[in-house]
Amino acid sequence: MKARYPVASTASTSFAAEIIDRIEVLGAISEADGMLTRRYLTAEHRRANDAVRGWMEAAGMAVREDAVGNIIGRYEGAEPGAAALMVGSHVDTVIDGGKYDGTLGVLSGIACVAAFNEAGQRFPFAIEVVGFGDEDGARFQSTFLGSRAIAGTFDHTILTRLDGDGISVAEAMAAFGLDTGAIDGAAYGRENVLAYLELHIEQGPVLEQQGLAVGVVTAIAGATRLSVTVTGEAGHAGTVPMALRRDALAAASECVLAVELAASSGTDMVGTVGKLAVEPGALNVVPGRVSFTIDFRAARDDDRNAGLAALRDTIDQIAVRRSVEIVTEVVHEAGSVQCASHLMAQISGAIEACGHPVLHLPSGAGHDAMAMADLTDVGMIFVRCKGGISHHPQESVTDKDAGDAAQVLCHVIENFALDEEA
Amino acid sequence: MKARYPVASTASTSFAAEIIDRIEVLGAISEADGMLTRRYLTAEHRRANDAVRGWMEAAGMAVREDAVGNIIGRYEGAEPGAAALMVGSHVDTVIDGGKYDGTLGVLSGIACVAAFNEAGQRFPFAIEVVGFGDEDGARFQSTFLGSRAIAGTFDHTILTRLDGDGISVAEAMAAFGLDTGAIDGAAYGRENVLAYLELHIEQGPVLEQQGLAVGVVTAIAGATRLSVTVTGEAGHAGTVPMALRRDALAAASECVLAVELAASSGTDMVGTVGKLAVEPGALNVVPGRVSFTIDFRAARDDDRNAGLAALRDTIDQIAVRRSVEIVTEVVHEAGSVQCASHLMAQISGAIEACGHPVLHLPSGAGHDAMAMADLTDVGMIFVRCKGGISHHPQESVTDKDAGDAAQVLCHVIENFALDEEA
Repeated sequence: MKARYPVASTASTSFAAEIIDRIEVLGAISEADGMLTRRYLTAEHRRANDAVRGWMEAAGMAVREDAVGNIIGRYEGAEPGAAALMVGSHVDTVIDGGKYDGTLGVLSGIACVAAFNEAGQRFPFAIEVVGFGDEDGARFQSTFLGSRAIAGTFDHTILTRLDGDGISVAEAMAAFGLDTGAIDGAAYGRENVLAYLELHIEQGPVLEQQGLAVGVVTAIAGATRLSVTVTGEAGHAGTVPMALRRDALAAASECVLAVELAASSGTDMVGTVGKLAVEPGALNVVPGRVSFTIDFRAARDDDRNAGLAALRDTIDQIAVRRSVEIVTEVVHEAGSVQCASHLMAQISGAIEACGHPVLHLPSGAGHDAMAMADLTDVGMIFVRCKGGISHHPQESVTDKDAGDAAQVLCHVIENFALDEEA
Repeated sequence: MKARYPVASTASTSFAAEIIDRIEVLGAISEADGMLTRRYLTAEHRRANDAVRGWMEAAGMAVREDAVGNIIGRYEGAEPGAAALMVGSHVDTVIDGGKYDGTLGVLSGIACVAAFNEAGQRFPFAIEVVGFGDEDGARFQSTFLGSRAIAGTFDHTILTRLDGDGISVAEAMAAFGLDTGAIDGAAYGRENVLAYLELHIEQGPVLEQQGLAVGVVTAIAGATRLSVTVTGEAGHAGTVPMALRRDALAAASECVLAVELAASSGTDMVGTVGKLAVEPGALNVVPGRVSFTIDFRAARDDDRNAGLAALRDTIDQIAVRRSVEIVTEVVHEAGSVQCASHLMAQISGAIEACGHPVLHLPSGAGHDAMAMADLTDVGMIFVRCKGGISHHPQESVTDKDAGDAAQVLCHVIENFALDEEA
């Protein structure tokens, strides 16, 4: 790929220092001592937004906060008012989370713009860096409130939902200084956005396993979540012969292994039983009832549906063979989001140009890019994190990887092209 | 089998009425409203013992309470001071238990003696009916305190153990009017006991399944209980590819099925995983750690040991194949108790004489007979209970089965012979 615009001659290391310094600053803005918790619309969210605002302004951006608390910096293009290439990620965290999740993407975007600004580079498009307010949903058990407002898919019924202290979203917004009447106005028109790029830690072990700093995301997996209840018959562990048992845990155990098998038989597909509860749950009682969850994800919806269909067949057979009742209920379903092929190609080109091998991988976790896909084409760059650990204090990214990833992002932005010839 | 002494010409139905009336009386003596809970050395245990004392006296027995609270009625033989055939079961219950567990055996013994007394029948042996004080261990997490005292195997270290209210066994005994200094004196000499017979509800579904009112117990199963911990690696349910997982629940599920398979491959053997806990236990997190219990029982110790050895091999293979750590710890081990063949033969003969088919079956649950086996030969008669349900308010025995079982017990007692020619 040939750079259309002069490459910002910024070394990975000079990106790294600034980004890591700011990661530490934001990482210290927490609701609770000894851990990082920064939920949507809290005083700490306010402090984080204010810090981000300062860095955006220093990078030459015009900064505003929208009606749902997203912090948005705009770096004008050669002509004022041009459509924008949006770059972003989230400012909120989970409870007791890690400091790279979300913030790395926001700070990398700012670092890129700072480099362009310093070099006096302007492009035929504007660049907007967004720090979304609510991605992790830790306060209101919500998802993507920030990116949905921008994408025009904000669900107003969420406004009455309460947090653990009985404060509604609407009340929290008012306390944050926001105008709920202006939420619809936060949505962007399609004509004003060229694409959305998100740089994010992988939150998985693949890049580390492959020895790579960065990767190209192909899709954000679609997910089906099921709640399953197996009803057999409780009995005395000593007195009910094996042949007369209808053991709910033995049946559930077969289901757990069936989930594993169904997921393993597909490409870019994962299946997990993360919760399982046994009743009555006594050492000397044959389990009469077991409830568990299934989390099933795949990069392609067809694969997920085929995997789930096979799984359901197996579960039905288990129920018949063991004379137990197995009830499954879908509690959540979301289709996959495919990253735009022209953005994948541009990211791949930038990774190659920066001297790294190119690896394509799906994202099993959700990201703001999922919501933004309703507005525009999306592309994502994944960054290696230690042990694949995320949403945890041990979440870790090396300075070098942070710098390398920002350099790739910078390369993508300055060579950004809308068409697929890029 | 030929009756050595005149058969008490007592019909099953006349036994039934008295036994069932008294089952209801004892079933109403509970520590808690709306359920049956009668723990060792409580005021309700006192009331139950007093009721039993009255019925024993009415049946012509000399009654005493021993140093651990067992209530014992003695019906002298033709010659005063003869060695005794002991018949018994327990007076205490589990928390929220059923009214037949234990009491059915005590009341059946009394009913038999009442019939002999009414008919003026005396035998060359005495009959002692015992209502043991502590079999279920619900108050002090103990087992067989009553029968162990009589068998001479009472463990004095239990005296300092506290109940949920901080009251020690010794304090509870004093409050009950007992003299802990006299416990050793409660033990019987071997020469004073001819055998121990126990009539008890099956607590399992086999007799019901076979359409039989009563059965001959062959052995009380030995049991090994294990605590197992599987340590794998927690991870994000969306981002960790199947091939890179070390899922503790998938490994544990294989173990659960291995327990089932190992137990099913033996005779009179059962294996149960009754408790299982998943950590961290979140819908979207691959389980990093699972702990569970194994309860493994067999009528023959060799079978149990062979089954467990095969199971351990399988568990080791699962750990290696899945790269998880599986630690097993034996938390309880008790050898099986074989019922004396001459008593089994006499019980079989009585069952046949009373017009029932004979079925031999092991007891998977523990009984006072286990402790009494240290003192003398033991034999047990099982009585059908509805759905195999026990230790539960729904525990149920038909009046007819209760009467039929008492008739069999009566037949065994009046034809009792020590030798195997019987």
